[in-house]
Amino acid sequence: MSERGLEYTDFVDLDSDAGDDELVCRFRFDHVEDVEFEWAAGAIAAESSIGTWDPGLTTMNEDIREMGARVVDLDESDGEAWIAYPPELFEAGSLPQILSSIAGNVFGLSELEHLRLEDVDFPSEVVEGFHGPELGVEQVKEHVGAGDRAVVGTIVKPKVGLDAEEHARVAYESWRGGLDVVKDDENLASMEFNGFEERVTRTLERKREAEEETGDHKLYFPNVTAPVEEMRRRSDHVVDGGGDYVMVDVLTVGWSGVQDLREHLPPDVGIHGHRAMHAAFTRLPHHGISMLAVAKFSRLAGVDNLHAGAVVGKMEGGRSEVEEIYRFLRSSWHVETVIPVASGGLHPGLVPDVVDILGSDTVVQAGGGVHGHPDGTQAGARAFREAAEAAAVEQTLEERAEDSPELAAALKKWGRNR
Amino acid sequence: MSERGLEYTDFVDLDSDAGDDELVCRFRFDHVEDVEFEWAAGAIAAESSIGTWDPGLTTMNEDIREMGARVVDLDESDGEAWIAYPPELFEAGSLPQILSSIAGNVFGLSELEHLRLEDVDFPSEVVEGFHGPELGVEQVKEHVGAGDRAVVGTIVKPKVGLDAEEHARVAYESWRGGLDVVKDDENLASMEFNGFEERVTRTLERKREAEEETGDHKLYFPNVTAPVEEMRRRSDHVVDGGGDYVMVDVLTVGWSGVQDLREHLPPDVGIHGHRAMHAAFTRLPHHGISMLAVAKFSRLAGVDNLHAGAVVGKMEGGRSEVEEIYRFLRSSWHVETVIPVASGGLHPGLVPDVVDILGSDTVVQAGGGVHGHPDGTQAGARAFREAAEAAAVEQTLEERAEDSPELAAALKKWGRNR
Repeated sequence: MSERGLEYTDFVDLDSDAGDDELVCRFRFDHVEDVEFEWAAGAIAAESSIGTWDPGLTTMNEDIREMGARVVDLDESDGEAWIAYPPELFEAGSLPQILSSIAGNVFGLSELEHLRLEDVDFPSEVVEGFHGPELGVEQVKEHVGAGDRAVVGTIVKPKVGLDAEEHARVAYESWRGGLDVVKDDENLASMEFNGFEERVTRTLERKREAEEETGDHKLYFPNVTAPVEEMRRRSDHVVDGGGDYVMVDVLTVGWSGVQDLREHLPPDVGIHGHRAMHAAFTRLPHHGISMLAVAKFSRLAGVDNLHAGAVVGKMEGGRSEVEEIYRFLRSSWHVETVIPVASGGLHPGLVPDVVDILGSDTVVQAGGGVHGHPDGTQAGARAFREAAEAAAVEQTLEERAEDSPELAAALKKWGRNR
Repeated sequence: MSERGLEYTDFVDLDSDAGDDELVCRFRFDHVEDVEFEWAAGAIAAESSIGTWDPGLTTMNEDIREMGARVVDLDESDGEAWIAYPPELFEAGSLPQILSSIAGNVFGLSELEHLRLEDVDFPSEVVEGFHGPELGVEQVKEHVGAGDRAVVGTIVKPKVGLDAEEHARVAYESWRGGLDVVKDDENLASMEFNGFEERVTRTLERKREAEEETGDHKLYFPNVTAPVEEMRRRSDHVVDGGGDYVMVDVLTVGWSGVQDLREHLPPDVGIHGHRAMHAAFTRLPHHGISMLAVAKFSRLAGVDNLHAGAVVGKMEGGRSEVEEIYRFLRSSWHVETVIPVASGGLHPGLVPDVVDILGSDTVVQAGGGVHGHPDGTQAGARAFREAAEAAAVEQTLEERAEDSPELAAALKKWGRNR
């Protein structure tokens, strides 16, 4: 600590390297005109660890100074800084605490115009402090017998409005048509027109019916998104009713609740993670938090499936970014893998593109692209499954459609592009 | 529903008004070139209620159509849309479900370049479905006997690094110097160098000591931010130890966890809400979610105090926006009021400006501006309290400093501006 106290630039130490036990964040930022690039980078490191704006804290000491984060690398032309955080700064297994450090106040610093947390490199000790997913990509695929093809699924549509019985019927037709997975939509919880318990009971009944008729194992992802105690109660209802998955909106529920859900569920029950709200802070390239970072947080918290972009379809998401997220979710990492979910504006004609770009260790889902089929849900489900089967053997959809009137009708309606 | 199905523009009904029981969102957006303004507004209403990209859902019916959100007003020059949502779309008392609807997928729509949720007008039925705060502005002020002056507080600094005993000592000196409130910092949870239970036990002991010596009632806000079960355990420890407040990072914990904390705590225990991470999505004027909306969500979830900007200091935040948030937090609304917290880069010289702009029904806090005082924490606390006392009687700080060497030293170091 210099005599003038602890300035922001004291948090810059480009001669040092990040230790193996340190967490490293890559930030990108634009600073305001009246500060230097290095000063601004130091401000991020200070505010996210032990520092504050006043360099002369009388309560500071050398031991604490050692716990400060350090800017270990800078790239001024790209506006990037790599900041290393000693492990003492983090509470094991608490995603909220870690995020309050590295993704908290820093976004509001007046020294900065914009700040984006691009990536977080977690040391193995931190990763191992988390529960992580239970199932892993292979187990999910084997469970439904997907083999070389992508897992195929649908979101019951309309998003909300069907009563429990209609919901269960649409789910049944989807499975019966050949889909592996049926999920609730992100805004369907326990509604007056469609209560959670009745919906789950009826839908799981129809699932068993579809399983008996098709001989296949099917999955239902009921949306348990709610305040914590209610989320626990609803999960118990699913498990008691023989369900083997729940779904949760990870960002509107929040990390504390998602970690609780993982701990509350029996170990063989999967969690499908929906990312509603993510684009409020992941979408702009120069500010916020990247979807790659959100994917890492979700994996630590323990989701088994995660919406991770589709490249094609109704939702924004650049190809190279989406590909990087998919690679991360499937890679080995001290906790189980996560199966990525491609969803949003898809229909049978887009399935080969999705599989070609993102691979078949994927859950590919369509809502409108199933229930908007001119001959109804069951035909839409069949067409979607056929498209995934064709993609797995690199057969063209046109060729496949010769033996599948459902696929032919889908291609006629939607073509091969949106 | 027209013969061509349900297009996005069918969600625009400018001749209709929002009903008293409807929730109304004000969005601001830029759309991509190849769609019309009205189409883009309709896409938001569709995606946040019952719609999807395909107009021909075979599972749609007229009853469900009635539950669709409607664009009831448009201002193309400002890029604004007002969307009314029928009450059936929401689950009473579930903030995650409501946010997954109105602040979920919409931010990722490919029809839009940017989207900002500016404000949410909640109907009284929805507000009443939430717990809300327990204390209210008056009770917080009376509790510490603040009278006409602002409540004054400090964040123990350095943010992390002090052990439990040192932490308790710094807290004691802060209270002893005249501050009402001591809080943990947002990234201090239960650390190896400073475990939660020992810190709380020691700090509450020193609080009682300071209370006996000063004759005043003091407050301590220990940070319980953690996964849910741990948050409950830590809150119990605070309550068992005689504490009457906890603090939580509302956004990194998430809404499900914050609602749980409110339900778990006894009714006379307050919650101090820290907003770490908010600027990741509130800061940019054209995308994300406004801090005013976050303040509304926080109040529904039941925090008693909320960081809401300081106008001056180290954190970004425009004056008119901050003033609007303060007005909202103190206004009557079917649930209790919330006392706003001004924090970030403050010191005694800035207190009159903060009080002048934002009023004295405020918690005004400083970290560096207390513990960076050249004569240490107790002198810094005294100087900060004196500044608030002066502001309450419209005495100048210079005049006050004549009888307060601590304030004089603070003004000498920091002046009246940062």
